[in-house]
Amino acid sequence: KFALFSVLTLLSFHAVFSFTPLHTQHPLDPITKEEFLAVQTIVQNKYPISNNKLAFHYIGVDDPEKDLVLKYETSPTLISIPRKIFVVAIINSQTHEILIDLTIKSIVSDNIHNGYGFPVLSAAEQFLAIDLPLKYPPFIASVNKRGLNISEIVCSSFTMGWFGEEKNSRTVRVDCFMKESTVNIYVRPITGITIVADLDLMKIVEYHDRDTEAVPTAENTEYQVSKQSPPFGPKQHSLTSHQPQGPGFQINGTSVSWANWKFHIGFDVRAGIVISLASIYDLEKHKSRRVLYKGYISELFVPYQDPTEEFYFKTFFDSGEFGFGLSTVSLIPNRDCPPHAQFIDTYIHSADGTPIFLENAICVFEQYGNIMWRHTETGIPNESIEESRTEVDLAIRTVVTVGNYDNVLDWEFKTSGWMKPSIALSGILEIKGTNIKHKDEIKEEIHGKLVSANSIGIYHDHFYIYYLDFDIDGTQNSFEKTSLKTVRIVDGGSKRKSYWTTETQTAKTESDAKITIGLAPAELVVVNPNIKTAVGNEVGYRLIPAIPAHPLLTEDDYPQIRGAFTNYNVWVTPYNRTEKWAGGLYVDHSRGDDTLAVWTKKNREIVNKDIVMWHVVGIHHVPAQEDFPIMPLLSTSFELRPTNFFERNPVLKTLPPRDFTWPGCSN
Amino acid sequence: KFALFSVLTLLSFHAVFSFTPLHTQHPLDPITKEEFLAVQTIVQNKYPISNNKLAFHYIGVDDPEKDLVLKYETSPTLISIPRKIFVVAIINSQTHEILIDLTIKSIVSDNIHNGYGFPVLSAAEQFLAIDLPLKYPPFIASVNKRGLNISEIVCSSFTMGWFGEEKNSRTVRVDCFMKESTVNIYVRPITGITIVADLDLMKIVEYHDRDTEAVPTAENTEYQVSKQSPPFGPKQHSLTSHQPQGPGFQINGTSVSWANWKFHIGFDVRAGIVISLASIYDLEKHKSRRVLYKGYISELFVPYQDPTEEFYFKTFFDSGEFGFGLSTVSLIPNRDCPPHAQFIDTYIHSADGTPIFLENAICVFEQYGNIMWRHTETGIPNESIEESRTEVDLAIRTVVTVGNYDNVLDWEFKTSGWMKPSIALSGILEIKGTNIKHKDEIKEEIHGKLVSANSIGIYHDHFYIYYLDFDIDGTQNSFEKTSLKTVRIVDGGSKRKSYWTTETQTAKTESDAKITIGLAPAELVVVNPNIKTAVGNEVGYRLIPAIPAHPLLTEDDYPQIRGAFTNYNVWVTPYNRTEKWAGGLYVDHSRGDDTLAVWTKKNREIVNKDIVMWHVVGIHHVPAQEDFPIMPLLSTSFELRPTNFFERNPVLKTLPPRDFTWPGCSN
Ligand SMILES: [Cu+2]
Ligand SMILES: [Cu+2]
Repeated sequence: KFALFSVLTLLSFHAVFSFTPLHTQHPLDPITKEEFLAVQTIVQNKYPISNNKLAFHYIGVDDPEKDLVLKYETSPTLISIPRKIFVVAIINSQTHEILIDLTIKSIVSDNIHNGYGFPVLSAAEQFLAIDLPLKYPPFIASVNKRGLNISEIVCSSFTMGWFGEEKNSRTVRVDCFMKESTVNIYVRPITGITIVADLDLMKIVEYHDRDTEAVPTAENTEYQVSKQSPPFGPKQHSLTSHQPQGPGFQINGTSVSWANWKFHIGFDVRAGIVISLASIYDLEKHKSRRVLYKGYISELFVPYQDPTEEFYFKTFFDSGEFGFGLSTVSLIPNRDCPPHAQFIDTYIHSADGTPIFLENAICVFEQYGNIMWRHTETGIPNESIEESRTEVDLAIRTVVTVGNYDNVLDWEFKTSGWMKPSIALSGILEIKGTNIKHKDEIKEEIHGKLVSANSIGIYHDHFYIYYLDFDIDGTQNSFEKTSLKTVRIVDGGSKRKSYWTTETQTAKTESDAKITIGLAPAELVVVNPNIKTAVGNEVGYRLIPAIPAHPLLTEDDYPQIRGAFTNYNVWVTPYNRTEKWAGGLYVDHSRGDDTLAVWTKKNREIVNKDIVMWHVVGIHHVPAQEDFPIMPLLSTSFELRPTNFFERNPVLKTLPPRDFTWPGCSN
Repeated sequence: KFALFSVLTLLSFHAVFSFTPLHTQHPLDPITKEEFLAVQTIVQNKYPISNNKLAFHYIGVDDPEKDLVLKYETSPTLISIPRKIFVVAIINSQTHEILIDLTIKSIVSDNIHNGYGFPVLSAAEQFLAIDLPLKYPPFIASVNKRGLNISEIVCSSFTMGWFGEEKNSRTVRVDCFMKESTVNIYVRPITGITIVADLDLMKIVEYHDRDTEAVPTAENTEYQVSKQSPPFGPKQHSLTSHQPQGPGFQINGTSVSWANWKFHIGFDVRAGIVISLASIYDLEKHKSRRVLYKGYISELFVPYQDPTEEFYFKTFFDSGEFGFGLSTVSLIPNRDCPPHAQFIDTYIHSADGTPIFLENAICVFEQYGNIMWRHTETGIPNESIEESRTEVDLAIRTVVTVGNYDNVLDWEFKTSGWMKPSIALSGILEIKGTNIKHKDEIKEEIHGKLVSANSIGIYHDHFYIYYLDFDIDGTQNSFEKTSLKTVRIVDGGSKRKSYWTTETQTAKTESDAKITIGLAPAELVVVNPNIKTAVGNEVGYRLIPAIPAHPLLTEDDYPQIRGAFTNYNVWVTPYNRTEKWAGGLYVDHSRGDDTLAVWTKKNREIVNKDIVMWHVVGIHHVPAQEDFPIMPLLSTSFELRPTNFFERNPVLKTLPPRDFTWPGCSN
């Protein structure tokens, strides 16, 4: 049956599509429109939609073997890498894992997932689910009881997690909001109603009208400029940039070269943007040197801290449950990115497998970035020395909007060798309605802060985990922790009583590399122990973290079991092609049996191996009134800095860019 | 005698100078050229230089009473504040504290400091001291022994700290360097020679030639572009900014207004830049609201971690020993600041009291600063909503170069109410010469990292302490710590087993407010307990710290006793006009008896009082080869963010700035 299907697919496929890529496809390129259509056809041919219920929950490039990709990088014409696509589809209520080889246009394997957890939700099923209450008589009765107008109500779906239930079905909670007089629906929740919808049955399976708290008013909640009235302010003056020599970067397909950097921009419906094959040109060694094979956000865990019926389940995994790629929004030129930015479009897919064009998914731009290095020397008689280099750095930006929250995700590159991934949060708080209008009325725990009358901003965390597959000068790397330790001087050999020194330990196994940042001062470095500088230092890249956040839930709590990858800020694993998602492949209703915390229990060796560093950055969010009705950016970032990677400062001999002034007509 | 002197001064003064200020002088304005000259004359009249040895070590504005300044802010014409100048001068080897009232042109008081410690060193005496070895026969012999050329040697002076000695004189260590073939003198130290010079005697009082280690070569150490040879790179393209509507800020004298902010820029020869009277316009309350009375870096402690004779004493206090203002360098247009920056000049003074013009001491510029806030709403049927506001923020920059290190000190202001002070380090590492050329040759502790052949970059820390006198909506403020605490659910009332909540405590006394950041998650907020928002929250500003650094020296070690203000990351004190310098007024050879750690032992009350927050930000520096021969910027910063200060997001109704494109001729 399988062979026959392949042949059929092959035929039908060729009849319909022709590939005309604008550039040679790179093995890590995102899936094209034509490829999505091919996948759709291949799967539909096996499971005709006339007699199968078929929904695509994930379509992604099946990672090619790393050694093949590396060979391709050296000799792109000498190697052909099969283009394989990994599909997770729910077919007749069963979760299928389908591997397709697009080169031969056929299904390579088709397995059914029988474990816990469900795939990324599709937009289509959520759109159907959020419409259910509006036609559900008990809900209409509840709405009437509250004196609200059903035509002014919009609902939204929320994943439910897992709280020890023996059996799970693909259910979501549906919460409803007033859209009357504002588009800021999240700040006008209708509180006190529990609605559970089953996505497979597509019906409401649980309904309770518990109590009635006030719906916050729409006053001062509108954020659309077109709906606001004066006074406006504060006033900002325009600041436009110009690059008289043109941009310093070139985008060829999805490969970017800029100054001394080259890297590839991928895109995945689950991970969103993926930076890969980042290498930097070493002026002194006259060669490009490999740094990062792949980097992306593997998961985002957002547990709310209200255990009541209204909020207890809100322990979201935004990547695994909703898809960072599926939730990526079109960037607004001149607003989300500066006027001189260039944009990259991409495709995502719908539940029926149809490609969806996502315009301006990514922007790339240069920005003025402080001073690169400087010195004024006044200590040499009769010499006056002042040298300073301006820094222009490169930023890659996407915005992932999962319901209320907007995640502004940047990767910055600097010519000095730094990479700086950063996260900034904006969008709307999740608000719980309350009858309380003033802090003095609070008599018991409200699990958040009063951010406006009748509006509680519930406490929550944002934990992002980055997958950082370093390949520093090759795949064989190690992870070193250099601790700073106080030494007390006892022999009286110095006028000092103490000093600090360093002690470097190579992490032998995964257990050695589980790091809680902040407990003790240490430098965390990925090195290549096989390559040394002229003076004998191992070449490496160092993690410079932001102020860390640690989980505050108890380890035995269900959400924390599912989000156990937050137990440490740094983890290191041996590279494994299948270990991509720190919270597991199937995160909706997951039970925590496929997380980074579980994989690392094997305590594998990580010395001089192809290793992956995982880094958790987090924010504990105690809402404030300034976060309401829309949040000014709250950001965090970390830096990956070359440490004894170069023989010396790699930008020592960079020239200042030419000075230009705002031109007259005859420039 | 005193009265007579006053009259004489008055007469002579009027004969020589006329004040023609370009704008009305603000009570917090830096000392003008004319004022420096007046001070010089007044003091020289009392202590004629014909028969007195007189050197000015500090000349600063004596802080006017805060309530007078605040009255002046409201009604500048109704109040006249005496212009008082505080002078520290060494006169005939005694340290004088002289208070001058420039309004009446006379000395108000003249006291002799008899305690421990000496004032900020003057440049003049250091220039004399570093010349001493070059004419000192034993040194010349040592140079000859090493086969070096005395005409290619330049020396530099280093403060010596205090290591339990009973008696101190004003000594400095003088270390010498090769300037042959490079201006990068700090990377070519002549190791193994101890030279101690007495600044009062101005002679070498101690000399040892201990041992001979190699002087590192000049190869690859030159950073001047004019002295470098190809290949140059990496190549950067120009990025210029244009503000078609002009800058969004206005500088009137030293008062700056920008968007919703107003503040004053002061300058002090010890503190460097001082931001004061920062207030923000509240669009909703239709008034300007006070935030920060004064903010500046009170001290910088840089202890090196090598206890050997060569380095043990290197435990510098760059502000108290060398003066941040005296060490401020002229900014290089288009390099240190972007092309559209505006510059502010100022005056410092020489040891003889003569004003020195410091061109481009400060720059002020707007910069593109990520997104201000955004949201894309896809959850409302038939509506397509995307709103995003570009953020332009304001930066104020100075660069303080103390010998080898350049400190890039920024204050950023955002329309959303944030202030973001940041520090970035560049310049040259302190290098210790060694015969070691390769890591394999290291047999014992070298107290640093081999950053090049024969060159050890010694371990050290940089601890900056900010003085932050918040006056949030008035002077009466409190300091609150909101701890995040895990709650285990035991009653089975929820499917959750845990959550976190917050517990807010007001610091009653100074002891309550000594905070080591990172031990436990907490929000640190300065509030005005007398002013509440409509829903009852206290208005406040929150500290969002960077990853903290804690001291690693033992508490009983002499440098740590002197730098005990680093024992905590946050301190809060009641406002006291004399408590300005966290390491003491006299820091050279100080004994730690006048530090923030000592003042706070009084454990004064700080509830609903005029309070000052002190914040220590630090970097432990393990040098790497990339830091050599000149360091790419290493930075840290913290944020001060309004927290329930505004009723809601204060930039909700900001309009996007007008879009402009690079103009043709007829724009
Ligand atoms: Cu949040
Ligand atoms: Cu340093």
